[in-house]
Amino acid sequence: MKFSASQQLAIGIDIGGTGTKLGLVDARGNIISKGDLSTTDYEDVKDFVDALYRTLSPMIEAAGGSEKIRGIGIGAPNGNYYKGTIEYAPNLKWKGIIQFTDLVSSRFNLPSALTNDANAAAVGEMTYGAAKGMKDFIVITLGTGVGSGIVSNGNLVYGHDGFAGELGHTVIVPEGRLHWGTGMKGTLETYASATGVRLTAIEMIEKNPGTESLLRNYQYDELDSRIVFECAEKGDHIAKEVFRFTGEILGKALANFVMFSSPEAIILFGGLTKAGDYILAPTRQHMEANVLPIFRDKVQLIFSNLSEADAAILGASALVWEMKA
Amino acid sequence: MKFSASQQLAIGIDIGGTGTKLGLVDARGNIISKGDLSTTDYEDVKDFVDALYRTLSPMIEAAGGSEKIRGIGIGAPNGNYYKGTIEYAPNLKWKGIIQFTDLVSSRFNLPSALTNDANAAAVGEMTYGAAKGMKDFIVITLGTGVGSGIVSNGNLVYGHDGFAGELGHTVIVPEGRLHWGTGMKGTLETYASATGVRLTAIEMIEKNPGTESLLRNYQYDELDSRIVFECAEKGDHIAKEVFRFTGEILGKALANFVMFSSPEAIILFGGLTKAGDYILAPTRQHMEANVLPIFRDKVQLIFSNLSEADAAILGASALVWEMKA
Repeated sequence: MKFSASQQLAIGIDIGGTGTKLGLVDARGNIISKGDLSTTDYEDVKDFVDALYRTLSPMIEAAGGSEKIRGIGIGAPNGNYYKGTIEYAPNLKWKGIIQFTDLVSSRFNLPSALTNDANAAAVGEMTYGAAKGMKDFIVITLGTGVGSGIVSNGNLVYGHDGFAGELGHTVIVPEGRLHWGTGMKGTLETYASATGVRLTAIEMIEKNPGTESLLRNYQYDELDSRIVFECAEKGDHIAKEVFRFTGEILGKALANFVMFSSPEAIILFGGLTKAGDYILAPTRQHMEANVLPIFRDKVQLIFSNLSEADAAILGASALVWEMKA
Repeated sequence: MKFSASQQLAIGIDIGGTGTKLGLVDARGNIISKGDLSTTDYEDVKDFVDALYRTLSPMIEAAGGSEKIRGIGIGAPNGNYYKGTIEYAPNLKWKGIIQFTDLVSSRFNLPSALTNDANAAAVGEMTYGAAKGMKDFIVITLGTGVGSGIVSNGNLVYGHDGFAGELGHTVIVPEGRLHWGTGMKGTLETYASATGVRLTAIEMIEKNPGTESLLRNYQYDELDSRIVFECAEKGDHIAKEVFRFTGEILGKALANFVMFSSPEAIILFGGLTKAGDYILAPTRQHMEANVLPIFRDKVQLIFSNLSEADAAILGASALVWEMKA
């Protein structure tokens, strides 16, 4: 396929377990128009693709028609770049292996590409964000779970099967905390996710019965990383310790990742980054302490500067500019 | 620079702490001629390059002259591919940063490329060995130390600074065994190297004073991985346990590497592979047990089929075919 000069817009679609965000994006990362729809309303994936089409069609028309669009980029859980499939996504209703890009391309009559959300975030950072101009970097998404997208020599690391970059599931604490989903123990996600922070907070409250803490004002099922942050801001010792400990685990994990691919930068993205230096300072400290001297003080450890509201759409849309003409 | 069709040979030079191996290799991996020289005899690196020239010149003449040679590939400790330098190699006499490819290219009037020995091994496997046709694989060298070369999407992973792939120094056992050189604790190399196997053997002998073992027939300074293997072959329980434990640590490390880059194969190379299934079986078991289901039973875990005597020369020479014309 050949692209023409008039095709200056990309569609980005980010499929989440609950909601789907979508938008039209230009090559500079300006979102021309955007929208969203429920993911869970559609039992049949074909109905979902129809809904995408109904939502996007007026936006495409307003932008000058389909001939202005170069293609469609999609971020999706368990997305496989090579095959364009969504495979056995535990938090989606569509079971088994879904040939998602085939459905989308034939409905829209446009080329499409798909990968998982963390990989899309990495392409987004390279195209529009903090990784502009970088050829070697890692994006770590610290949200409900921990995702990762790895770029080496200017290309996303997909691995032989399209599933590379599951750094949230690497074991950092052997025989450590049990993962609620995978059954593995001591993986990065069990500590450095919003879920992990909540579990750490509960553990620390229980293990330090004599220590006063604002966290004790909350029911366990109310506790989340936002509340821990607010308590830390009020000077709460245990709340600060929760983030320090989380940063220690994360920093040790990042040290191993650095010795794997020697990135110029590691870009942190997602809800936990709201904790700012409470998490960034210990992360940096333990990353630097656990790498060989040859890697020390060389890796930029930074937060993404893309707005969380738009980053998913931007990341997905950025896949389009990577398409081979 | 342009290559001509007559340039069908590559020179491979492998610089070790004690000895240097070199040879002329054709594109199929046949070693046309080879030789070696001492590394330690040369206090000044320029004298060493002169000695390389004196050793190689007759071989080059015998092969039809310099116009038959496409270039020179070099494997060296702490070799930096981007800069062609050897930087602060602890086991070489030449201190600081050595502009090695500049010295070689001007002495031979041929293009040259340099990387560390494990990266060279990976290029060798891709060009001549078990990884032929693969685009995503990892080579782990299990020798005195543990080295690694990572290939992703058909390219060696060098990272932003040329130093990527130090998997031997990733922490696998937090607060584990102290590394004799780096001062880090619990890194892969402290267990899965020849040195590590020796330390494990001594530990197991001492911790199990009541258990008979053929290993007790040796002084501690005699013990090495070869002797442990020979004792295992005679049915010695502790000797077998040494390799099982080593394989367990190695397998857990490989699991994390698999979730990073999702390789088609992991190729093990070096002295410890002589232990065969004593180490391979537990390595595979613990690798498979520690990856997400999506990666299970997908990664080939194999020994290199290149002869250890020739692999270093082949790997170094293979860098030449990767040179951009």
